[in-house]
Amino acid sequence: MTTETLPDHFSVVYRLHGPPAQAERTAAAIALEQTVELPADLIAPGSFSAQLIGRVAALSVVDATTTDAVISYAGATVGEGLPQLLNVIFGNSSLIPNIRVVGLTLPASLTDRFPGPRFGRAGVRQRLGVPARPLLCTALKPLGLSASELAGVAYRCALGGVDLIKDDHGLADQPSAPFAERVARCAEAVARANDETGERSIYLANISAPAHLVHARALAARAAGAGGVLIAPGLVGLDMVRQLAADAQFNLPIMAHPAFQGSIVVSPTSGVAHGVLFGTLTRLAGADATIFPNDGGRFTFTRADCAAIAAATGAPLGGLAPIFPTPAGGVALERVPELVERYGHDVILLIGGALLRAGAALPTAARAIRAQLAP
Amino acid sequence: MTTETLPDHFSVVYRLHGPPAQAERTAAAIALEQTVELPADLIAPGSFSAQLIGRVAALSVVDATTTDAVISYAGATVGEGLPQLLNVIFGNSSLIPNIRVVGLTLPASLTDRFPGPRFGRAGVRQRLGVPARPLLCTALKPLGLSASELAGVAYRCALGGVDLIKDDHGLADQPSAPFAERVARCAEAVARANDETGERSIYLANISAPAHLVHARALAARAAGAGGVLIAPGLVGLDMVRQLAADAQFNLPIMAHPAFQGSIVVSPTSGVAHGVLFGTLTRLAGADATIFPNDGGRFTFTRADCAAIAAATGAPLGGLAPIFPTPAGGVALERVPELVERYGHDVILLIGGALLRAGAALPTAARAIRAQLAP
Repeated sequence: MTTETLPDHFSVVYRLHGPPAQAERTAAAIALEQTVELPADLIAPGSFSAQLIGRVAALSVVDATTTDAVISYAGATVGEGLPQLLNVIFGNSSLIPNIRVVGLTLPASLTDRFPGPRFGRAGVRQRLGVPARPLLCTALKPLGLSASELAGVAYRCALGGVDLIKDDHGLADQPSAPFAERVARCAEAVARANDETGERSIYLANISAPAHLVHARALAARAAGAGGVLIAPGLVGLDMVRQLAADAQFNLPIMAHPAFQGSIVVSPTSGVAHGVLFGTLTRLAGADATIFPNDGGRFTFTRADCAAIAAATGAPLGGLAPIFPTPAGGVALERVPELVERYGHDVILLIGGALLRAGAALPTAARAIRAQLAP
Repeated sequence: MTTETLPDHFSVVYRLHGPPAQAERTAAAIALEQTVELPADLIAPGSFSAQLIGRVAALSVVDATTTDAVISYAGATVGEGLPQLLNVIFGNSSLIPNIRVVGLTLPASLTDRFPGPRFGRAGVRQRLGVPARPLLCTALKPLGLSASELAGVAYRCALGGVDLIKDDHGLADQPSAPFAERVARCAEAVARANDETGERSIYLANISAPAHLVHARALAARAAGAGGVLIAPGLVGLDMVRQLAADAQFNLPIMAHPAFQGSIVVSPTSGVAHGVLFGTLTRLAGADATIFPNDGGRFTFTRADCAAIAAATGAPLGGLAPIFPTPAGGVALERVPELVERYGHDVILLIGGALLRAGAALPTAARAIRAQLAP
């Protein structure tokens, strides 16, 4: 019996930075570290523990200083849930530099253990009543505005036909705009604008909050008329997304924000690759849209990084629905056609500052973008 | 009015890697990004938002490619809780390479908003009945053993006088040793050994679990006789620690494990410094002990990294109790005297594989270490 004769085995591609001659030893060490976490000679041959040791399925030299190691793990190492899946993928090995997770292949028997995105691209489109065109999103800010002021911005956004109007991820429950008041006012403002436009824009409330409040805030947001929520897995834990996606009572779209997750991706030789973290894992957790900083804005993700995320939002992943890539972070208005060309129609364009700059003319500015999105 | 005339202001030191001539601009960008998240010209002068913009309090050139920027933030940017504090410290800026958080200074008025460690060093010592010597800890493993087999290991550890006997962080709720059965058997085994030795060893159950189960598992572990819990903030979110530390009903020591947090620290030019993450923030969340891989084992933290973590566990932090640094990760038996010399008596030495190697002779091997710890 080996890992691969056990059910639900999955594989991780680790990119090892260092002399290829060391790669075999490094890969074998990872296979132990991520499972039994003991030297091989302390594992009784033939024991169940021995069967759970990761198996180095392939080693391929990329260049003189880089080797990809594919390690296969038994589903029994996970047993339950996303936290332990993350732990098997990269728990202890994350603490070692020059190892980067660049690939993750999960069988349907494993993805079936997760609820996955409740809405996905099709479900979000249905809610918005927008069958085909790229979607437009903006963020309510800055921090420091009152709930009424933020609601005023939300109203102008919805009048302008912005499909998804989300809290800035830094709006929590500060005294300047307490959660309950902010959500009620913003949801009401968007509903009022919808009555005028005949469209179906939604307001997404930020529920990144202390652990004991996240779920309650999600339900409160729904009760107050929010059409979705924004959550930052780096601040509250990725499995909070899964918990919400699994909750039939909650039943709203979830947008994931990358705050505090940057350290996981920004070093090219350690951490987890952009597509795996913001694509595969965020989708597995059940987000319906995944925000990431587009290249060429004020962040430094490359075009290839962004393409990898977008690809992972739609690639086959068991029976899980595809989700929306949501490029953001200093997207200038004149880049809209280019982004639609690159990402296609199944994209949410998150344009914050460039839209807010319009002030009172925001509805007109938003309509100008919308005109570019609906040919 | 500026940030620093508002209450509860705190400061973060960002190490900027790049030409010092660019540092002023980068620091100003961080001060905006972490607060109002808009260009400065979109913030109305004199508005409350303008007051919330971080203030660059100091810039100091470290060397030709490194500058430290101290940015001061108003407590009103946080409003509530740890997730939003993390967001202000490094939410979006984590997505930008060549910025590393190397310092964090929190006023007592801000730390007072957190429960902090419920036990700290003194409380853990009281529970264990060990007033002064270094403490000994080991991990139950490997994954794949049955609950009875793990309990057998726990029994031998406790017979040998290991003070803290924790689940390996990879023991979740796998079929090989389901949580409820494992915790009941291990807690019973340690209690039985305590009856024989007259000592007060404790078993710490791993409660890193799906989000909706973490708190319930903590209470279940307590009910089953566990004397503490192990939790990996990188897997379940740092604020889960705070939630447990705040819970008077739970009321057990908490040990934090660094699984999946490595990516945050391993790049020297991005992420968060070891002492800030595994020291200050983990203590602020309320862990009573913080595990980290010691230098010279099978991980690559440096001696300085480890010293920074240890220092942060005991440095002044509002009124919060000092906690135990817990060096681990391939600690060889012959290094015990050196570690005690370095870390002093207020340390938990986590020795896994090197103890488990003793097999049936584990009690004798553990007693040999204990003899070195109690002069």
